[in-house]
This record gives sequence, structure tokens and C-alpha cells, in this order.
Amino acid sequence: MIRIAFDEVQRQLASVLHKLGFSTARAGACARLFAETTCDGVYTHGINRFPRYVATIRNGSVVVGAEPTRISAFAALERWDGHRGPGNLNAFAMMDRALALSREHGIGCVALANTNHWMRAGTYGWQAAQAGFIGICWTNTMPNLPPWGGAERIIGNNPMVFAIPRPGGHVVLDMAMSQFSYGQLESYRKRGEMLPVDGGFDTDGNLTRDPGAIEQSWRPLPIGYWKGSGLSVVLDMVAAMVTLGKATHEVSRDPVLESGISQMFLAINPAAFGSEPRTVEIADAIIASLHNSKPAAEGKRIRYPGEETLRIRAENRRLGLPVEPEVWSEILAM
Amino acid sequence: MIRIAFDEVQRQLASVLHKLGFSTARAGACARLFAETTCDGVYTHGINRFPRYVATIRNGSVVVGAEPTRISAFAALERWDGHRGPGNLNAFAMMDRALALSREHGIGCVALANTNHWMRAGTYGWQAAQAGFIGICWTNTMPNLPPWGGAERIIGNNPMVFAIPRPGGHVVLDMAMSQFSYGQLESYRKRGEMLPVDGGFDTDGNLTRDPGAIEQSWRPLPIGYWKGSGLSVVLDMVAAMVTLGKATHEVSRDPVLESGISQMFLAINPAAFGSEPRTVEIADAIIASLHNSKPAAEGKRIRYPGEETLRIRAENRRLGLPVEPEVWSEILAM
Repeated sequence: MIRIAFDEVQRQLASVLHKLGFSTARAGACARLFAETTCDGVYTHGINRFPRYVATIRNGSVVVGAEPTRISAFAALERWDGHRGPGNLNAFAMMDRALALSREHGIGCVALANTNHWMRAGTYGWQAAQAGFIGICWTNTMPNLPPWGGAERIIGNNPMVFAIPRPGGHVVLDMAMSQFSYGQLESYRKRGEMLPVDGGFDTDGNLTRDPGAIEQSWRPLPIGYWKGSGLSVVLDMVAAMVTLGKATHEVSRDPVLESGISQMFLAINPAAFGSEPRTVEIADAIIASLHNSKPAAEGKRIRYPGEETLRIRAENRRLGLPVEPEVWSEILAM
Repeated sequence: MIRIAFDEVQRQLASVLHKLGFSTARAGACARLFAETTCDGVYTHGINRFPRYVATIRNGSVVVGAEPTRISAFAALERWDGHRGPGNLNAFAMMDRALALSREHGIGCVALANTNHWMRAGTYGWQAAQAGFIGICWTNTMPNLPPWGGAERIIGNNPMVFAIPRPGGHVVLDMAMSQFSYGQLESYRKRGEMLPVDGGFDTDGNLTRDPGAIEQSWRPLPIGYWKGSGLSVVLDMVAAMVTLGKATHEVSRDPVLESGISQMFLAINPAAFGSEPRTVEIADAIIASLHNSKPAAEGKRIRYPGEETLRIRAENRRLGLPVEPEVWSEILAM
């Protein structure tokens, strides 16, 4: 693992994207989202994901110059078509639009069809919180998870985000419907470690903490067993029905062909009623109740969603972004 | 277990509520919600819960005649005060208001402070779906669940509902953030059964399927471990901040004193863009992809959230509502 300064990473990625046909502004914005993702410690969806992102551009899954257009509007609710443009730029534009709608209507909702993988889900939560809004968003995905009671991967892990603005540190939950991603299973297996809790079934149908056994069975667990399975289904239904776009079962199972997915972006304006000071007090008191509660293990502290991100972000800004040397060489050669 | 006809149950409960000071119309509406909950198979929150509901009326936690009033409005977003009125009637009125807002604005959101336990969460999802709307709602609760890594119950199990209208059978997910409720733990223990999956920690801090051991430790598991714990926190934050009402840490831990809680009701109008026939096709195709997928166990079928409810509802309508004889005697004597 090597460390490269944030700005150098952004410059390098932007240069590659520019060669691939992105405008200067869009190359810079896209590169920044990748760098920020690694900076925040979500290593699976930052720089390490960039080569696969480039592959989806080269094979035509992602249309470099496409930008979302509005198809229908009904006051606070809008339907947009992403025209298979870059998923992270599309999503950023759509959360921005949801924020504008919520400024005007108190709450706003943008449904985006025909888009691509948005990389880190939490990005659009941080975006909303930094602008002072409550942000809720989710995406459907290719079929990558068996439903509860099922043997085949036919539902998506459909990440969902809740973000709450708070001057003392935004609260951002970024949560896929699978207990562990395939990337996490691979990491545990390579380190020779067992999962901390059951993560799926082995090929005999027994619950197991063995990451390799779950990779073999292709049967990772939904969070909360039947509950996360149900949540995955309803998130997919809402996204596909409101966008009139693809549902999970219509999306390719090949990661570099996963394209044309459906996403929802909701924003609530907590300042709509002019009561910001009180909302900050309420948020701070909830965080204090977590921090002051008794941990199960001596010396630990209960953390809120997003708390650890701030520490990692500061560290990576100071030391440079951690990058796999092979990945960095690959990017430099692009 | 005895069976009593739906109408007889509703009449009897309404009569008790009327004696307690409910108007005829409100007594009938409230009694209907209890009867429907039992009819749909949610036995913990229907007739069996009625004696505790009456206790919260008698001790003043629930103010019989109170109705919600609007405090602030900003286009599609409204804030209401429930004045500690009957939680189920308050919630029903607020989902109705969210539906009206979404008719006008495409999406609508009502934030309700100072209300009481809404009994079955799913009630307000079925309500939205039956009216043809996508409904999303959640509530905070008294502190009844330890956060991930925590030893004390300081977060709520904060049930959340997603409901999707579908002529062939509405899809309704009603999901608390705890893997098993205390009521479920008690039922398993009384039947001498182990839980199907880990449900919490024993007093030594080990994960266990033994319901009695979890009742002793007071450490049930959040769904998805750290994930459901985080989701509980953000649902509480959004509800308390938008309502300016109580957060979980401010609510009494005594079930009959749990009062003044905060709830969110969102509705999306899937017909806003005039595209109903296509949305129904999309919903049906998703359900078909579940039904046609391979089950893990021979002869089983993957079900969608709410599917089983329709079967149970029809059976209980035909045979009468199942009621514990002691509970029914208690109600008849009220």
C-alpha cells in the first residue's frame, strides 16, 4: 500500500477521464468523487474501483457525455432519465435536484431511470447533509443476493442512505441489504479470517462465518434474514415503479454490463419551519445519548453512523490516500 | 384459543372505548383497527394488546379526546402535534393527510410529534396502498434495544413500513429494527423452542438462539447487527428533528408510560405522471421474478412482504378472529 496526495489522485484520475472523452469540468468532478470515497475509507468504491469504472466506459455500458434529462414533473416529484451516463455524476446531479425541490416544497423526490452504478452510495448522503438537508436515497442493483428462502441470486443488495446534517458531524448511514459484500468476503478470505458473525450459507445450506464457503455457495445473507430480503424487494419496487425504469431482475448479472438501473433521491428541508437551532440541539442530544451509554466491552464507545468517517478522512487527507501499488500503476498507464 | 366474528369483536371493543369517553365514530374506527390487526395475523398488536391500550388510557398516557393539529406547513411538508391522543387514530389521520399532500404535490410528508404507540405499524402501509399510494412511515419508540456494541437498551426498535399498491395484492413490509420482539422471545420460550437464528446475547455476551437467555440479558440483536442499529438511530433522528418532538432517549422505558413519541408519514403518488398501467406491470413482474425463482428447500415458494397476510386475513374473516379466552373475558368485563 502506498499513499498519494488527494490532489495528485484527483488530477491523475481526471486526466484519464479526460482522455476517455469527459469534459474538463466533468472529469474533475468525477475524479473528485472517487478521491473523496477513498479519502473517507470506502476503499472498495474509490480508487480501487476506478479500473472497473473505466472498463464500463470502454465497453459502452457508461455513455461518457450523457446527462440526465427531466421526463415528467409534478410539483415536488420528478422523473428523470439518466441516458446511461456516468452513474456518480448522474446521482450527484439528481441529489442536487432533490435538494432544490425540497427548498421549494419542504420535501423533494427525484426518481432516476436508466442510470449506472453510483459507486459509493454514501456520497449523495454527505452531499445532502453538507448542504444542510436530510437526504434519503437508494438504488437498485444487478441481482446479487438470494431472497430469504431462495437458492438463487435474484434480488439486489440495493444500498440505502440516510443522512442528517449536524454542525458537530453529519450523521450518514450507508447500508447495503447484504450483511457482507462479495468484496468484503474476499478480503476476509485473503486475510485468512472468519467473519465476525454469520454471513451466509455454505453449499450444504448451513449458516457459516467462513467467507470462502459463502463465495462458493453464492448465498450471502440479507441483513436481518427475512427482513433485509423484504426491504430489498420493496426498495426495488418503489425505484422501478416511480422511475418506470428497470427492476433488479432486468439488470445484467455481469458487473461490467450492469447498466440502466433505477434510483430514488429524497430530501427534506429541516429549516422549512425556521427551527434550525432546536433541530441541532435534538440531533446533538441523540448523539450524546449514544456516547454516554454503557459499552458492552470496557473502554469502547458507541459510535454514530459516519463518526468514524471523519477520523479516517482527516488521517487520509494528512497522510495521502492509501492506494494499492498495482492499481496505481494501472491507472498511471491508462 | 376461541374464535369470535370480526363484527362482534369490533362491536365489543367499540363499546369499551365508548365507555372510556371515545365518540361513537372514533370508538368504531379504533375498534376496527384492532380487529383488522388480529384479522391480519398480527396477534401481538391486535385484540391481545387491547387491555394494555386501555391501561394507557386509564393512567392518562393516552388522552381520549385529543386530535392532531397542524403546527407548521411548508407546501408538501407539514408538522403536526398529536396532543397525546390515541396513537392509532392519530397515525391513521396523519397517513391520510400525507396521501392528500402527495395528491397535490406528488410526494407528501407529515411529521407528527407528541403522539402515542400506533399499535401495528403495517396498518398505515395498508391504508396507503389501499388508496393507491406508495406509503413509507416509521415511528420512534421507548428505549428497548442496545445499540451495536452497547450493553444498555438506549435505542428504539423503531418500526418502519414500506407499502406498494398492487391490484394483485399490495406489498407491505412492516419491520422493526430488532430481529425478534420481546413478545416473540416470550412465545418461543413458552413453547420451549429455540429461535431459528441468533436473536441476541446471553448474559456472558455470547450470541444465542435461546429466547430465555436473551430475556435475561435484555440484549436482543438489531437486524443486521451494526446496520439495524445505525438505521434505528437515523430513523429516530429524522423523526425527532422534523417533528421537533421527543427522541427515543426522552421516552419512558415503562410500556404503559411510553408516550409523546415522534412519527413520520411519507406518501408518493405513483399516478402523478399518469402511468398506472405500466407501474402495475412493473410491480407484477418483480413479484413474478420472486415466485418463479428457485427455493432453497424443495416445494417451498419465495413470498413477497404482505403475501401471507392475504391468506391469513381471508381465513380469519371466514372462521372468526382467534382470541385468547382470558383476554376476551377481560374485555367483556370492561
